[in-house]
Amino acid sequence: MINSWRTFSQIIEEEILKTPILGEPIELYQPIDYILQLGGKRVRPVLCLLAAQLFEGDKKKALNAAIGVEIFHNFTLVHDDIMDEAPLRRGKPTVHQKWNRDIAILSGDVMLVKAYEKLIESEPRNLSLLLNLFNQTAIQVCEGQQFDMNFEKRTDVTLAEYLKMIELKTAVLLACSLKIGALVSGANEQEAALIYEFGKNLGIAFQIQDDYLDAYGDPEKFGKRIGGDIISNKKTFLLLSAIENATLDEKSAIERLTQNQNSEEEKVQQMLNLYNKLGIPEKSKVRMNEYFDLCTSSLNRIERKEELKAPLLDLANTLMERNN
Amino acid sequence: MINSWRTFSQIIEEEILKTPILGEPIELYQPIDYILQLGGKRVRPVLCLLAAQLFEGDKKKALNAAIGVEIFHNFTLVHDDIMDEAPLRRGKPTVHQKWNRDIAILSGDVMLVKAYEKLIESEPRNLSLLLNLFNQTAIQVCEGQQFDMNFEKRTDVTLAEYLKMIELKTAVLLACSLKIGALVSGANEQEAALIYEFGKNLGIAFQIQDDYLDAYGDPEKFGKRIGGDIISNKKTFLLLSAIENATLDEKSAIERLTQNQNSEEEKVQQMLNLYNKLGIPEKSKVRMNEYFDLCTSSLNRIERKEELKAPLLDLANTLMERNN
Repeated sequence: MINSWRTFSQIIEEEILKTPILGEPIELYQPIDYILQLGGKRVRPVLCLLAAQLFEGDKKKALNAAIGVEIFHNFTLVHDDIMDEAPLRRGKPTVHQKWNRDIAILSGDVMLVKAYEKLIESEPRNLSLLLNLFNQTAIQVCEGQQFDMNFEKRTDVTLAEYLKMIELKTAVLLACSLKIGALVSGANEQEAALIYEFGKNLGIAFQIQDDYLDAYGDPEKFGKRIGGDIISNKKTFLLLSAIENATLDEKSAIERLTQNQNSEEEKVQQMLNLYNKLGIPEKSKVRMNEYFDLCTSSLNRIERKEELKAPLLDLANTLMERNN
Repeated sequence: MINSWRTFSQIIEEEILKTPILGEPIELYQPIDYILQLGGKRVRPVLCLLAAQLFEGDKKKALNAAIGVEIFHNFTLVHDDIMDEAPLRRGKPTVHQKWNRDIAILSGDVMLVKAYEKLIESEPRNLSLLLNLFNQTAIQVCEGQQFDMNFEKRTDVTLAEYLKMIELKTAVLLACSLKIGALVSGANEQEAALIYEFGKNLGIAFQIQDDYLDAYGDPEKFGKRIGGDIISNKKTFLLLSAIENATLDEKSAIERLTQNQNSEEEKVQQMLNLYNKLGIPEKSKVRMNEYFDLCTSSLNRIERKEELKAPLLDLANTLMERNN
C-alpha cells in the first residue's frame, strides 16, 4: 500500500506521542516534550518518509531518521525563538517564555544530541556518509540564521544574498530530510543527489511563495495579517526585488516608506502600489515557478515507480498552492 | 617514544592553531576561533591522546577525536557562560560578552556539530558505539548543568545529590574522553570500561579537591581568592558535608552565616572555624582519596605496559596535587 503524505504526517504525530523523550531533571525534558507536541505539518520528517517510500526502504529505519530530523528542526525553533525574542510559536508560549532563557538554551542543546541519537538508530548502510550530510546541513542552517540576523542590520542586502540565505536557513533542511530518507533506503548516489535537489528547489520556491502570500495572499486562507512583512520592513524577496528594479526616485520612495510613521494600513497600501508598478508580483511568480520547475524535473529524472513519486508531488503542490 | 601529558598538551595546542574552524558569516566563526584559542590545560583531549597511547592506537585518528572532545568542552563553556552570566573566562571576555547572547548561542550550536564532525573523522572501527557513548555523555553534561542551576535555588541539596551532579557535569566527560581514545585505538570492551572508570573517579576526586582548595588552598598556588565559594554560598562538598554532620545548633549557625551581611572576611573565617570543628577538611581528604584510589586501581587492572600507564598517572597526580 502506498501512503499519502497525510498518512505519514499522522504516523509522525503518533510516533512523537508514543515515544516521548524522558529524563531528569524534568526542567530539561518537559520543554522538549512541549515543543515536539506543538504540532505543525511535520513537513521535514514526512519528506524523509516519502523518500524512503519512493526508494522502497525499511519503514522502521526511516521512521527513526524522520524523528531525528523533526527533533533537529524543533531544536532550531527553540534557539531561534530566543534570538528573535518571539513570545509565541504556533499560538502557544515559546520555551524561553514558558520556562526561561537558560532552560531554552540547554533543552535545545539536548535536542540536538537527541537528533543524532535517532539518526544513528536509523542504521544506514553508511553511517558516516549520513552524518556528514546531516552535519553539513546543521551548520548551513546555523549560517542561514546568522545571515538572517545580519541582514536585519544591513541596508545593502542583495536579492542574490537573500536567496542564498533562504537556501541555507530553510531549503537545505528539506533537501537533507529527503536525502536521509534516500540513504537509509539504499538509494544510489545519483538518486540521492536528485531527491536532494528536489527538496532544495522546493524549499526556495516555498519561501518565495511565503513572502508573496504575506503581501498578496487571501488573509482568511493565509491565516496571518496581510502586509506583516511590509510593516516590519522585513527584507523579503518582494522588497529586495523592488529595490533591484526601482529607479532612483522609486528607491527613495521605498526608503521613505520604510521610515514611514503614518498608519500601517497606508504604508502597506503604498508599498503594494509600488510593488505592482514594478511588476513584482509577476516577477515573484516567475522565479517561484522556475524553482518549482527545477524541483519537479529532478523528480522526473529519478527512475522509480510513478505511483511512488505521486505523494511527493502531491505534498509539493499542497505546499505551493495553499492559497488556491 | 612515549609522550608525556605535557607533550600531548602542546600537540593539542598546535593542532588548534594549525587547523582553525573557518567559514562565513564571520560573526559565527570568529567566536569559535576565539574560545578555542583561550588555552587551558586541554585536560580532556590530552586524556584522549594518553588513552590512545596506552592502547597503542593510530595517533592521527586519536588526534581528530581529541579535538572533537575539546570542541565539545568549549561548546559547553560558551553556553554555560551565558547561563551563569559570566563576564570572564580565563581572564578574557566571554563570547556573549565580547559579541552578544545570540552569537554565543549560535556559534555554540555550530561547535557542537563540529565536535561530531571531528569524532567522525577519527574513523573508529565502530562509529555508532563511539557516538552512542558521546551522545550519552553530552546529555549527562547538560543534565549536570541543569541540576547545578536547580541546586542554586534549593536549600535541601544532599551530599549524594551533589556528588551525582559533579559526576554528570564534570566527571563523565573526562571518562568519555579516555574511552573515546580507547575505542579509536581498538581497546577491548573491558579495557574501555576500566579507563572510563579511571576518568570518572579522577573527575570526582578532582572536583572535591577543587572545593577543598577554594577554602584551604594556598592563595598563591591556587590562583584564586580563598573562600570565594563561602562568600557566594556555593553548595560545595565542604558546605554540604558540614550540613550533614552538624548538630541542630550548628546547622542554625551555618544558616545564619550564609545570610551574613557582615564583612566577607569575617564570614569566611567563621565558616572555616565551623568546618574545622566538624572535621570537614579531614572528611574531604578521606573522600577524595577514596575516589582517587578507585581511579588508580582501575588503571592497575588494565593489562598494558606500565610505561604507557605512567603518563596517565602523572597527569592524575598533577591534577590532584597542584597545591603541593
